[in-house]
Amino acid sequence: QVSLRFRDAFECMRKLRINLNFIYDHNPKVFLENIQTFISELNSTNHINLFLTELKEEDTTSSMYPRPDGSALLPQTGGPKKVDVVCDALRRTMETLDQNKYFLSILTSHVKKTVPELEIALQKVHELRVKPPESPGSVSAEEALKYLLFLVDVNDLYDHSLGTYDFDLVLMVAEKSQKDPKEYLPFLNMLKSLEQNYQRYTIDKHLKRYRKALQHLSKCGDGCFPEALQLVKEQKLFAEALRLYPADSPHYRALSCAYAEHLVEGRQAEQAGLLLWRCGELTSALQAFVSCSSWRNAICVAQQIPLPPEHLALLARDLAVKLSEQRRHAEAAVLLDQYAKDCEEAILALITGACWEEALRLIYTHNRQDITETNLKPALLDAVGAQNAFLDAQVATFTRHRSRLAAVREHKAKARLDMLDEEGLDCPDAELYSEASSVMTTSKYSHSNSRISSRSSKNRRKAERKKLSLKEGSPMEDRALMYALSELVTTVDKMREEVSDLLRALVLFQYHRQAEALQLAFQEALQMMEAAVPEVWPEGPQSGQTPLTGPNSTANSIMASFQQQQQQQQQPPPASQQDADFLVPPKMRNCIKWKLSILT
Amino acid sequence: QVSLRFRDAFECMRKLRINLNFIYDHNPKVFLENIQTFISELNSTNHINLFLTELKEEDTTSSMYPRPDGSALLPQTGGPKKVDVVCDALRRTMETLDQNKYFLSILTSHVKKTVPELEIALQKVHELRVKPPESPGSVSAEEALKYLLFLVDVNDLYDHSLGTYDFDLVLMVAEKSQKDPKEYLPFLNMLKSLEQNYQRYTIDKHLKRYRKALQHLSKCGDGCFPEALQLVKEQKLFAEALRLYPADSPHYRALSCAYAEHLVEGRQAEQAGLLLWRCGELTSALQAFVSCSSWRNAICVAQQIPLPPEHLALLARDLAVKLSEQRRHAEAAVLLDQYAKDCEEAILALITGACWEEALRLIYTHNRQDITETNLKPALLDAVGAQNAFLDAQVATFTRHRSRLAAVREHKAKARLDMLDEEGLDCPDAELYSEASSVMTTSKYSHSNSRISSRSSKNRRKAERKKLSLKEGSPMEDRALMYALSELVTTVDKMREEVSDLLRALVLFQYHRQAEALQLAFQEALQMMEAAVPEVWPEGPQSGQTPLTGPNSTANSIMASFQQQQQQQQQPPPASQQDADFLVPPKMRNCIKWKLSILT
Repeated sequence: QVSLRFRDAFECMRKLRINLNFIYDHNPKVFLENIQTFISELNSTNHINLFLTELKEEDTTSSMYPRPDGSALLPQTGGPKKVDVVCDALRRTMETLDQNKYFLSILTSHVKKTVPELEIALQKVHELRVKPPESPGSVSAEEALKYLLFLVDVNDLYDHSLGTYDFDLVLMVAEKSQKDPKEYLPFLNMLKSLEQNYQRYTIDKHLKRYRKALQHLSKCGDGCFPEALQLVKEQKLFAEALRLYPADSPHYRALSCAYAEHLVEGRQAEQAGLLLWRCGELTSALQAFVSCSSWRNAICVAQQIPLPPEHLALLARDLAVKLSEQRRHAEAAVLLDQYAKDCEEAILALITGACWEEALRLIYTHNRQDITETNLKPALLDAVGAQNAFLDAQVATFTRHRSRLAAVREHKAKARLDMLDEEGLDCPDAELYSEASSVMTTSKYSHSNSRISSRSSKNRRKAERKKLSLKEGSPMEDRALMYALSELVTTVDKMREEVSDLLRALVLFQYHRQAEALQLAFQEALQMMEAAVPEVWPEGPQSGQTPLTGPNSTANSIMASFQQQQQQQQQPPPASQQDADFLVPPKMRNCIKWKLSILT
Repeated sequence: QVSLRFRDAFECMRKLRINLNFIYDHNPKVFLENIQTFISELNSTNHINLFLTELKEEDTTSSMYPRPDGSALLPQTGGPKKVDVVCDALRRTMETLDQNKYFLSILTSHVKKTVPELEIALQKVHELRVKPPESPGSVSAEEALKYLLFLVDVNDLYDHSLGTYDFDLVLMVAEKSQKDPKEYLPFLNMLKSLEQNYQRYTIDKHLKRYRKALQHLSKCGDGCFPEALQLVKEQKLFAEALRLYPADSPHYRALSCAYAEHLVEGRQAEQAGLLLWRCGELTSALQAFVSCSSWRNAICVAQQIPLPPEHLALLARDLAVKLSEQRRHAEAAVLLDQYAKDCEEAILALITGACWEEALRLIYTHNRQDITETNLKPALLDAVGAQNAFLDAQVATFTRHRSRLAAVREHKAKARLDMLDEEGLDCPDAELYSEASSVMTTSKYSHSNSRISSRSSKNRRKAERKKLSLKEGSPMEDRALMYALSELVTTVDKMREEVSDLLRALVLFQYHRQAEALQLAFQEALQMMEAAVPEVWPEGPQSGQTPLTGPNSTANSIMASFQQQQQQQQQPPPASQQDADFLVPPKMRNCIKWKLSILT
């Protein structure tokens, strides 16, 4: 049962200087359900205004006056803001009860909103002036305006009065302000002389409301378009502008070109190309697509222009060079084959890209079996040599890092035990507590921040990676080694497809021995790495931390393993989950069947 | 300092019935360095034989007689076997000291090897018979053979004598055996009458040594090839057989065909195709490639045959149908466009496969812009509708599973605390110990086994997944929910590329509104899932387990969190790292830039 003695509460709180927000925060539901009681209990515009002006977007039950049982409500995020909820609710009730009596409080409720509704407040004052209420005790427009000027900065109010486009309102505010009529009157008169849309555009621009300005300017006819284009470019209102003009108009086209220029500067040439293409600016579109190697789009536009065949062939060659540089050999081959009509170059591109099957397809399609002997077979032998050498190097590095990691870990474990022995176990609790609590705070921090500051955490991550040095004896050498080992496993695992393709081609051309050797070497490398996983990454997500206690544990062992866990947790806190990637064993895609059963 | 009183040790051990392996195991290095002393100290063929026959592949210092300090050496794996090392070392020394004196021990050292060297032992007996030594006290061939028969089963010895292809040896053994000369003499005489290679083949086959049999048979000339082919098929010796015949021979071709048939039966049609193609069996190769949709190879072979154009077109259509069924629409389009010469069907395949850019490329290349209106644009609108609907469904399921997971977890936590309250904290140690130790053993088990029984663990994994039921109240519902949530995140994350392609196409065709809506919906889905990660997967690899102790902890909270950790570890042990996949937050590929900046 709630007694709702709002008046007593209010007076008491004022006397004791308790934050008035607490009236609401203490029990928002009850407050909102009893607003009428609240207003009639307080029964004073001044008191209501006081309450409204003290409202803050903060829950005093968790900040200033925490509940004794510690049960803080989770902060609501995303929903409507508390200040707005209270302002709107109070205003609705006051308007029902007596619009005139509570006039100043109603104004306050508009002004105090998160985004102050100054225009609405001004509008209400204006109405009051135009049609003064007859009821006794009503406030006058004069008084209301004075009150508003007490709540809000006069220049703000003047700007917002301008923003209503209502010159009566503007004059009313201007007269109350300290402004010099010699200054504002000529400006207002100039505005009055303008066509309505252009007038509003001028006001909006004056108030730096560029989106609204553009909307009004777009209605001013073709003559104003250059001015609009200028505004769009200055304020980068491209997307908005495209919505304001019909897609088949010359303005739309001009805006698209301007937008495209802006996008190209921002390295988004492909989107620029799409805008230019769809509004028919084919030459510019082609340029944009070429610049970002968007070759399919480029070819389409070139054919729509249409480029003469010899130019199309040149374009195809240019694009093919770009794609080859990006190791996109298969795509380069399509261009060379189908648009440059140069099947030989296409086949060579495929061979360079180790696309053996596709190379053979073109060889047979164009009846160029000679290339098999001159290029394909030698390339196959080169490839098998290169793959073997690469594999050897990866395996050697892996083995080196792995044994170094074992040595580093042993050294660390020994150092830890030595330290324990020296310090004795007299009073380790204090230390443990501080470690544990610091772990808590850091992990909390990283969680709450992971979403918001993804950019800064990315930088942090980079910085952290740099700190990981493989140099012998560097402070986080073990982590650096795990990271390096993880990368090696991933690299070798990624070779499955390429090795499989190579094996097939080798078998086809009777390089059985080489194929067998490569298959064996690759299989051994994969097996070696897979077998090393439990050693390098002993703590899988659930593989179980060393249990603290057990039938064989001693006081020392419990302390040691506990401290070890703490230390592990205490190491530089990973900025986010992804940072800890290399602490989890890398995934090996054993589902990919790369082996040939005909090689034994 | 080691005194090497081998004789005293040996006698003492015999008396006390101590396993003789211990003489070596106790200190392998010293034993191997002092073998000569060992032999001269024992000074008895019988004793040496006794020692040799007792040798076992086992380290008695870790099995029967563990060291008091518990410092067991790690079992060597992979290296040469202990029994072989000791046999070889002893034999080398005995042969240097006195080959005749130690003759029987030398025989023993051959017979006792991991793979008994019966042929060599027999050979040595044979030499003894042919050329009896003159030194007094030498053993006779008769005696030696008798000793061998005491060590080895007579039939084994007979088989191995046959395996030497030395009929003298065979007769020698046969005479000593209980075999009936009426049985073995005709067989031996038959063998003697055969050509040498065929004779050896016959013997090998009799002894079931099929590889050797095939090697000998392959040297018997063309007449024997049918018999060889039969043997290859029966014993599946395809790979070996191909090595025995030159690649350009008709035999090689016949063997390839047989091998291919076998591979097709084993669902390895592509490898079959490669074998058939390389030996020139084009029709069969084509069939094999078609059956496994290896379309590039199929087309190459078809052109090599060469198939007439109309047949090639039909083949291309058949393959395209197969590929489309496998959702490989882009590849189907290549076939339809380039080999069936049906650009319209090709474009439709690309549209079906949502390959918008490639579809446009063919549209412009073949000047079929009409298809843009009739098919491409309607398909784009269908696609955006489908993607939106799919996204909605994924998000709805995610939200449902997520809140159910929270409920299940809360329920479990409450149940745990209730249990603690009921049981009190009188003596929880015993329970904790048993849990902790069982964790240790299971995790050990899963580690050591992860390599060997990958197949069976795969089955186990499958079985485990089945146990995870989403049914409300099922025992591992929380895990099932995490697994389902992980799958949902992965599915939505995989849509990045497809959505990005669709957005570009929509923009190009002025479907701006639809594009904006899809971009927004997809972005919100990704953000919602990413934001849910810390809640659903609170225990990242290093996000820090709840620390057991801390300034705010109470006895109860420490117990509770400790038990919780134990329980998590105790839940059905993951069969391997991969099993615990869904316990780690799924990776989101935020590196993939799918958004268009022109959509706001």
